[in-house]
Amino acid sequence: MNVQGKHYRTIWLKEDQPEVVQIIDQQALPHEFRIVDLTTADEVAHAIKVMTVRGAPLIGASAAFGMYLAALHAPRHSREAFLAHVRVEGDKLVATRPTAVNLAWAVERQLKAMEAASDVETMIETARHTAQAITDEDAEFCRRIGEHGVSLIEDISRRKNGDTVNILTHCNAGWLACVDYGTATAPIYAAFERGLKVHVWVDETRPRNQGASLTAWELGQHGVPHTVIADNVGGHLMQHGMVDMVITGTDRTTYTGDVANKIGTYLKALAAKDNGVPFYVALPSSTFDWNMRDGVKEIPVEERGADEVKYIRGLHNGEVVSVLITPENSPAANYGFDVTPARLVTGLISERGICPATEAGILALYPEHKR
Amino acid sequence: MNVQGKHYRTIWLKEDQPEVVQIIDQQALPHEFRIVDLTTADEVAHAIKVMTVRGAPLIGASAAFGMYLAALHAPRHSREAFLAHVRVEGDKLVATRPTAVNLAWAVERQLKAMEAASDVETMIETARHTAQAITDEDAEFCRRIGEHGVSLIEDISRRKNGDTVNILTHCNAGWLACVDYGTATAPIYAAFERGLKVHVWVDETRPRNQGASLTAWELGQHGVPHTVIADNVGGHLMQHGMVDMVITGTDRTTYTGDVANKIGTYLKALAAKDNGVPFYVALPSSTFDWNMRDGVKEIPVEERGADEVKYIRGLHNGEVVSVLITPENSPAANYGFDVTPARLVTGLISERGICPATEAGILALYPEHKR
Repeated sequence: MNVQGKHYRTIWLKEDQPEVVQIIDQQALPHEFRIVDLTTADEVAHAIKVMTVRGAPLIGASAAFGMYLAALHAPRHSREAFLAHVRVEGDKLVATRPTAVNLAWAVERQLKAMEAASDVETMIETARHTAQAITDEDAEFCRRIGEHGVSLIEDISRRKNGDTVNILTHCNAGWLACVDYGTATAPIYAAFERGLKVHVWVDETRPRNQGASLTAWELGQHGVPHTVIADNVGGHLMQHGMVDMVITGTDRTTYTGDVANKIGTYLKALAAKDNGVPFYVALPSSTFDWNMRDGVKEIPVEERGADEVKYIRGLHNGEVVSVLITPENSPAANYGFDVTPARLVTGLISERGICPATEAGILALYPEHKR
Repeated sequence: MNVQGKHYRTIWLKEDQPEVVQIIDQQALPHEFRIVDLTTADEVAHAIKVMTVRGAPLIGASAAFGMYLAALHAPRHSREAFLAHVRVEGDKLVATRPTAVNLAWAVERQLKAMEAASDVETMIETARHTAQAITDEDAEFCRRIGEHGVSLIEDISRRKNGDTVNILTHCNAGWLACVDYGTATAPIYAAFERGLKVHVWVDETRPRNQGASLTAWELGQHGVPHTVIADNVGGHLMQHGMVDMVITGTDRTTYTGDVANKIGTYLKALAAKDNGVPFYVALPSSTFDWNMRDGVKEIPVEERGADEVKYIRGLHNGEVVSVLITPENSPAANYGFDVTPARLVTGLISERGICPATEAGILALYPEHKR
């Protein structure tokens, strides 16, 4: 999507220097737009871990490019030594974040592709092609999510006689979380392009404020009307008819429809249910976990450092600084995700269409995963 | 309760200088413990408006002292001129914050008390006594809330064979929100004094962070184990059995049991209901609104400035500074309260006991309000 009027993706190979991966530093946003070079799998793993890149689909694409960099720097004297090296690097990449399933999916896909190649040079070439394919595919899948999802917004717009459709979203499932378009934002951007009146309630999304810093920034850059709210506000807005629908992304969705997403999503889903507001989750199929049945019990939820809760980064006198917001000695806990049970989800929007958040609904769209 | 080992209330007349009201500056906490002098009703109104003092019961007590200061500075040449002056000052105090019902209640009580006195000197004396009475009463009511509420914690503790009872609270309904003990915290302090193992999950409470800055601070000063969490976390904790009960305060509760409280309370009540966690609201009777039936429709919800959402105050290099956390041009909305429907409230804890959040339950404790 657009930044200062120019089209960007979130990850790409540097022009004329295809051994360098470039990303947008999402820690510097919204106060600075900065592009970072990554040259090794270790650097990619670090970027994922400290959330210079984040968002399940982008984590997958980053891991894919990380595997390409691992291949570039692997020993070339034997196929076995090469594969041993990229497998170790793959394990390191998978270990960076536990909740997003796209990470393991991308690493696995890279390993399979490389294993199928006969010699080291072909393996490197394959890794590069696969990273590019995963990235292009994600962009295309998000575009299709937009095409499917926009019909829901059009329906509401018609029902409201063209009045503004108010959409609440949590965290950043925008193009910054993916390669382009976004998941939750894809239908919103598509509606905006078609000239429908839309307005987005942007949940701040504590503790890391991906809503306030990333979603607000990307919507603003693209010109989409939006308002930042504290995470506490959504229920009140829904009680008063000020939200027409909720769309979020997801870091992992079971084949039964349970949705792991940024901590706090479950609370918004409860409020949506209580007020009859439709609650949709947008995802590319790489985010499905075809092995897990019970999301609340089975999906691992990442715990991060307490300082992400105790300190907030923001702009002060033109400089980004961290400020302490709790008593210095108070402990803090930092759970990164929660799981919204399928019963609270109105539907899933994927690249293949819209389906109910049920095993039957999901498998009807993805029959190849029936057992 | 204790600050650095010494007992404090939140508001009092200055020793040897009874024309000065002293308060704890709650905007400076948790980074600095600062006492502020107030000498006019206007200064009290300003302190309420900018939230140097906050919390429904303390707002009531502050307004009562504000009326005493108004009386001190009223024209003394005639009873009528005196009363006209204090009525105008009373209106100004009531206009500072729309949601807390204690404000109008305290001003009304002061006016009635003064109107009953025959001469100006007696009216001033009456205003002082009434302010003191309202304050003492609030402290005593909170103490009794603790005595009643502790039985709920004892029950859970017994059921858990003495294991830690985990209590989640939202915003600050601690002694800082009242005169002493607090409302939501009174049962917790009482349990702590009795040697029960308790641990408090402290919701940060964006946008003004009263949990992270005030509740965490007062629990820490008193030695009560606690952990600060983002407002998004409570649902996840409840899904995983990590919360035994929720206790919050309230700014206004209808006689039918609908609870207006800090924005986000409704979301926690929904999660408590969904997970079978008891959800209690603690309040002195001054917080009941005996005229409103439907809280969601009737209770006015304060909207505050967008900058409270866009900027966060915290400690940086030993200095409290504000940092911008959104894109500079993104709009923000700031609703201060939401209303939790009575159907989500397990019970109310007041100075007279524990009752269901229903008209029948409330009027059984307060039969004098039956019509």
